[in-house]
Amino acid sequence: DVFSGQKTTVFETMSIMAAERPGGCCNLGQGFPDNELEGPEGMKQAATAAMLPPNSNQYPPMMGLPELRQAVAAHSGRHAGLPVDWQRETLVTVGATEALAAAFLALLNAGDEVIFFEPLYDSYVPMARRAGAVPRIVQLHPPSWSIDAAELEAAFSPRTRLLVLNTPHNPTGKVFNQQELELLAALCQHHDCLCLLDEVYEHLVFPGGAPHVSLRSLPGMADRCLRIGSAGKTFSFTAWKVGWLTGPADMVAAVAKAHQFITFTVPSAMQRAVAHGLEHEQSFYSGLGPLLQRKRQLLAGQLQQLGFSVLPADGTYFLVADFGGLLPAGSTEDDVAFCQRLVRDAGVALIPASAFYADKATAPRTLVRFVFCKTDEKLQAAVDALRSYL
Amino acid sequence: DVFSGQKTTVFETMSIMAAERPGGCCNLGQGFPDNELEGPEGMKQAATAAMLPPNSNQYPPMMGLPELRQAVAAHSGRHAGLPVDWQRETLVTVGATEALAAAFLALLNAGDEVIFFEPLYDSYVPMARRAGAVPRIVQLHPPSWSIDAAELEAAFSPRTRLLVLNTPHNPTGKVFNQQELELLAALCQHHDCLCLLDEVYEHLVFPGGAPHVSLRSLPGMADRCLRIGSAGKTFSFTAWKVGWLTGPADMVAAVAKAHQFITFTVPSAMQRAVAHGLEHEQSFYSGLGPLLQRKRQLLAGQLQQLGFSVLPADGTYFLVADFGGLLPAGSTEDDVAFCQRLVRDAGVALIPASAFYADKATAPRTLVRFVFCKTDEKLQAAVDALRSYL
Ligand SMILES: CSCCC(=O)C(=O)O
Ligand SMILES: CSCCC(=O)C(=O)O
Repeated sequence: DVFSGQKTTVFETMSIMAAERPGGCCNLGQGFPDNELEGPEGMKQAATAAMLPPNSNQYPPMMGLPELRQAVAAHSGRHAGLPVDWQRETLVTVGATEALAAAFLALLNAGDEVIFFEPLYDSYVPMARRAGAVPRIVQLHPPSWSIDAAELEAAFSPRTRLLVLNTPHNPTGKVFNQQELELLAALCQHHDCLCLLDEVYEHLVFPGGAPHVSLRSLPGMADRCLRIGSAGKTFSFTAWKVGWLTGPADMVAAVAKAHQFITFTVPSAMQRAVAHGLEHEQSFYSGLGPLLQRKRQLLAGQLQQLGFSVLPADGTYFLVADFGGLLPAGSTEDDVAFCQRLVRDAGVALIPASAFYADKATAPRTLVRFVFCKTDEKLQAAVDALRSYL
Repeated sequence: DVFSGQKTTVFETMSIMAAERPGGCCNLGQGFPDNELEGPEGMKQAATAAMLPPNSNQYPPMMGLPELRQAVAAHSGRHAGLPVDWQRETLVTVGATEALAAAFLALLNAGDEVIFFEPLYDSYVPMARRAGAVPRIVQLHPPSWSIDAAELEAAFSPRTRLLVLNTPHNPTGKVFNQQELELLAALCQHHDCLCLLDEVYEHLVFPGGAPHVSLRSLPGMADRCLRIGSAGKTFSFTAWKVGWLTGPADMVAAVAKAHQFITFTVPSAMQRAVAHGLEHEQSFYSGLGPLLQRKRQLLAGQLQQLGFSVLPADGTYFLVADFGGLLPAGSTEDDVAFCQRLVRDAGVALIPASAFYADKATAPRTLVRFVFCKTDEKLQAAVDALRSYL
């Protein structure tokens, strides 16, 4: 079976190595914000109130609490350029991870082909394979993570069922631009395929950079695109595990058929808290872009001084840097060995970029991912630890 | 794809019909306790405290919080007759539903056969089919829901990979006895197959009836059995969606590989609250058996007066009754039509027994399931509504 060969996800492995290191460790590996940066107090109060009378601690509806589905529809309407009917076009899931799993299991049949861009999030390919599908992987080319149109076109076939697009993009921070989205829209329509849009970082875009645009908002795309959002990313509560899907009624209904047998429903207290957030705490997520841009600049500047080459980005809380210039001439150390050395000897946990490649052979060898949704002090401590070690 | 033909689960459909009925409705359909019977206050306080400093609202470990995994191991050690190593033999999931889904996706390959007992919970067969497996269904024969040993033996083949056993059993309330468990143990060892034990109702057993025994505790079974538990059922908080798996390290590790890509982890506040419950609120679940037995007797006595024939049971909060004696001579009304009539005209929502049959043709035609984890007043109101209607 396709899972038996899987390793434990690198994010988990690195977080455990960081937590267990004698002498402590700066964990810039797994993508989660520091406690100091977590979401609004009012959302925690809403979660608490949701467990008290007159509210119920018994099964919420399978598709989600109406108040959250209404808030999700309004949020998507505001930010993704398209009105959403909450009763037919929304589904609440256990984080974006379940939304992805349910969509793959619902939409893919044996032998269907799925187009992915690489680097990619590590659950995509195993889950699509488990659903019986065949991945067709298109490279994003560093340093700007550009698409080669000919390579993309060559990935389509009569068996193409689904294209998966993650923008803003993990791990690169790339925000797909209008021209790229138009190319994707044209190809998806030409080949009549569906699209699964992982837009969990939709609010983590930097002022002045490429704006986030949903592929679903382009002409001819609304009826073939499912859009995934995440309260964990939007409100910096990654432990809450609330995600959602919006899209055409038939696609949402299909995914709900999988969801009802995968988790059935989502803890109601977390749902109410997220409904409160989407309705009343919009300033939290609209402030994320400027905050994260400043933190990125802080980290990037210092990494450059240390000899890293920092790749450009327009969003997310991930920074990719090339450490090739730090290696002694002739060294063949790769990203995995470099990260193992840093976590052990410098006390800084990072993620090797090759973790985002299904086939390690096609991965760049000297790129690493830093997470910078951390306090300035912690970012400084990480840089200091790197400086004294390197 | 196997999900596209699926209907929305009958539990959901009935709850919606009950909630939307003008004039109100007694919902004895979907299996959840009344608010008045929900779990301990201390667990809600623990959930609230878990969201406040110094606790984190960021990703808990993929396999679950150590404190919950320790509590799960101790609980299984106490109640399932076998010590459990929390670090290697436990996994926390988004309810028992995710535990089932992850186990099917992790353990089954295309063409593997899975043995189920019917009646059965409605997620089992679609999820096993989605994993590529072929269901082999063995009937439990009413009124005592007995196994025919020859039918069971005939269901095994060289392709048998997994046997799924739900005890105490939904919808029948049957608690598999020692003799039945020994037959299952012998056959599973003879055919060298694995077992998935859905024991979510383990604490809902009536004093004086058959005690609950886990198949995992029988000689030779520990290394081939995964046991599933549920905080929703153990603490009457069905909205919390915390479940767990215990079993041999290799099977737990395999299921964790699926879990990490299905949901990755479980909301940490809910996990901490359940850890508190398993450690400090054991009197809650040890009181469930006597409480539910009394409620069952209350409901059963009145249903018999109305002309239902109540089938015997040793556990759960489900009661199966035969309404055949209530039909006019010559009527061919089946359980689905009867339930639709009752929800519409009497204002009482029940579940037709045929909902628990993969092939409706093999289902008994005049059985319905009542849920009785409700206040005495609500049970009385349901009986009164039935009496004035019938
Ligand atoms: C579910 S752990 C991974 C978190 C994350 O999104 C990342 O680090 O890329
Ligand atoms: C997940 S809804 C079903 C609840 C339940 O266990 C039942 O009613 O049988």
